[in-house]
Amino acid sequence: MKKIFLLTVGLMVLTAGVGAQELNNFSFGRGQRVQSPVIGTDSVTFNFSAANATAVTLSGSWAEGRGGAVQMTKNGNVWTAKIPMPEPEIYTYSFIVDGISLNDPQNVMVQRDGSRYLSMLLIDGERSANYKEAPQRGTVSHVWYDSGILGINRRMTVYLPYGYEDNPDKRYPVLYLLHGAGGDEEAWISMGRAAQIMDNLICKGEAVPMIVVIPNGNPGQQAAQTLGLPVKTFERNDPASANGYVRSLVTEIVPYIDKHYRTDAKPASRAIAGLSMGGGHTTTAAIMYPGTFDYICPMSSGLRAYDDIDKDLQGIKKAGYKLFFVGCGTADNLAYASSQNLDAALTRNGMEHINCFTPGGHTWSNWRFYLNTIGKLLFK
Amino acid sequence: MKKIFLLTVGLMVLTAGVGAQELNNFSFGRGQRVQSPVIGTDSVTFNFSAANATAVTLSGSWAEGRGGAVQMTKNGNVWTAKIPMPEPEIYTYSFIVDGISLNDPQNVMVQRDGSRYLSMLLIDGERSANYKEAPQRGTVSHVWYDSGILGINRRMTVYLPYGYEDNPDKRYPVLYLLHGAGGDEEAWISMGRAAQIMDNLICKGEAVPMIVVIPNGNPGQQAAQTLGLPVKTFERNDPASANGYVRSLVTEIVPYIDKHYRTDAKPASRAIAGLSMGGGHTTTAAIMYPGTFDYICPMSSGLRAYDDIDKDLQGIKKAGYKLFFVGCGTADNLAYASSQNLDAALTRNGMEHINCFTPGGHTWSNWRFYLNTIGKLLFK
Repeated sequence: MKKIFLLTVGLMVLTAGVGAQELNNFSFGRGQRVQSPVIGTDSVTFNFSAANATAVTLSGSWAEGRGGAVQMTKNGNVWTAKIPMPEPEIYTYSFIVDGISLNDPQNVMVQRDGSRYLSMLLIDGERSANYKEAPQRGTVSHVWYDSGILGINRRMTVYLPYGYEDNPDKRYPVLYLLHGAGGDEEAWISMGRAAQIMDNLICKGEAVPMIVVIPNGNPGQQAAQTLGLPVKTFERNDPASANGYVRSLVTEIVPYIDKHYRTDAKPASRAIAGLSMGGGHTTTAAIMYPGTFDYICPMSSGLRAYDDIDKDLQGIKKAGYKLFFVGCGTADNLAYASSQNLDAALTRNGMEHINCFTPGGHTWSNWRFYLNTIGKLLFK
Repeated sequence: MKKIFLLTVGLMVLTAGVGAQELNNFSFGRGQRVQSPVIGTDSVTFNFSAANATAVTLSGSWAEGRGGAVQMTKNGNVWTAKIPMPEPEIYTYSFIVDGISLNDPQNVMVQRDGSRYLSMLLIDGERSANYKEAPQRGTVSHVWYDSGILGINRRMTVYLPYGYEDNPDKRYPVLYLLHGAGGDEEAWISMGRAAQIMDNLICKGEAVPMIVVIPNGNPGQQAAQTLGLPVKTFERNDPASANGYVRSLVTEIVPYIDKHYRTDAKPASRAIAGLSMGGGHTTTAAIMYPGTFDYICPMSSGLRAYDDIDKDLQGIKKAGYKLFFVGCGTADNLAYASSQNLDAALTRNGMEHINCFTPGGHTWSNWRFYLNTIGKLLFK
């Protein structure tokens, strides 16, 4: 066997020399090799090699609001910025080089938000503990289903908890987890760390093992834009326009999941949660199909005042539910008023619910926190 | 129902205004909105907005070798380059802005090669037809398995062909598809378009529906670097060092797949193929475990001359096989000589095989072509 071992090692050395699988055309312009980001004990240092740049700033989501860019200073060919250790959380950042925004070329951890890729920074701590990789992990799949309502084949993400494959007789509850405008079936995985959050909660015994289904909430999209598939547009009088996605979700996706996975196919084992636009889809689904989901969790959405709101909520109350969770940031200009309105309407209608009104705005920081929170409450 | 419909639309408009799911800190520096790339009838135009740059060049893999950068010209704030239509193929490219390499910010299609993200350009045509999205698509999953041999929990990618979920009594053959040095369990999906190639071949009836398993061939890696997991290093005398990955592949991954998926668990329904380092893993697995895989397809690897090569090949011959496919680019400085050596050794040993020696080098262009080729030959 020794001979074969040497043979394989030889091939590894042979190919490792090229630094990547394919000879590349991009080696010039990459500059000097530096390390970035460097997470210290009380600060984070960013390094960026750019011999010819005249001004480089660091822009990161740890600075609340739209400002907060930090000028980087040049030492040799390397631009550097050191920031005080931010609070434990996941952040995104970029370098602004002579007016051009680019990602940290030394940081392979990247999140995608719609059409933009952003360098990612995870600061470890209590709040972010469940955003890291867990010791035991579930399966994440991209699955395609045919929507007759929308007239296209569509992609969704399905998370199966650790142990699913090795417990063929066990049935699982399902959380339908919906994204916001600008997102897609990967948003909760990439920005939302949904797989890590569920893995960690389940590992610790804080959540029951559950399936999580993340559909694409943009009715004309077959899948995330990254696949380059054409987007279907609907005429105003196309029946698909009238809540086509919500109807597809409840009457096509739910049955698809119940058919193809070992679900516990009953309302008590079915939750729906969503952020922003997906919070609208959540309440719309709960109103249109009362009694389908026993756990209803709109985040950063709420419900505006409208004539029949009490009648609609009474429909949900009559059908019964186990949890109505209203999450919103108190600095969320888009949704805090409507979340307060939903709170008031639920109270007025004598409907038990949990308000989870947290500091901050319309941010993934809040949405990750809400998922981490509801994960512990569902199906118990 | 009308009321609910209006409600949902209202929320969509409300949130669509922010352009992404989360208010972002990155809007400054993104510059004027342009479209790029623009694929015309006989040319491709690239546009890049950069008011303050002094020199911008376009560097793309359509220019063979390491050169081929094209100077872009400035019109207003927008830099433009037009190139003659390249041959049908998938290319990667970047902009070099005052010495800094960055991706096309307008192009959401991105491939990852190791730690680098590269803008992607697909030029349609006969050679690239199967690299586009097919009308019917299989499921792509990230699955974790425990390796006792390597002592870590590891991720692999599993492709299930269209129809797998709806044919619960059908069993499928399996292709184990291995990547090169610098790659990981996503390389064949991202750079290699393995899902699209298999989808298209199966849709057209040119390939039999099969499961494709893409493990991570770097023994110390738990998963792609993008997950930020620590990499395990092995001491030289650690038993795991002696072909630990190949042993894990054959004695841990193959049984895992046979247990958890509806495979046709016999050598005649098992293929192994790999590029570069993965080609070394392919021949090593075939030699160490003769009779396990009836289809053996090293690409851009071959086999160097060594003392016992004839004895090892006779082991494979004696165990029997159905296909020995040797793929290599004739301009591949890393592997063409060893591929010719393997060809000669197979001939010398009276072993039927197919040489697929093509123009070009150690490139994904060739590896996609080889997968597209062997896809039609396997399990027939």
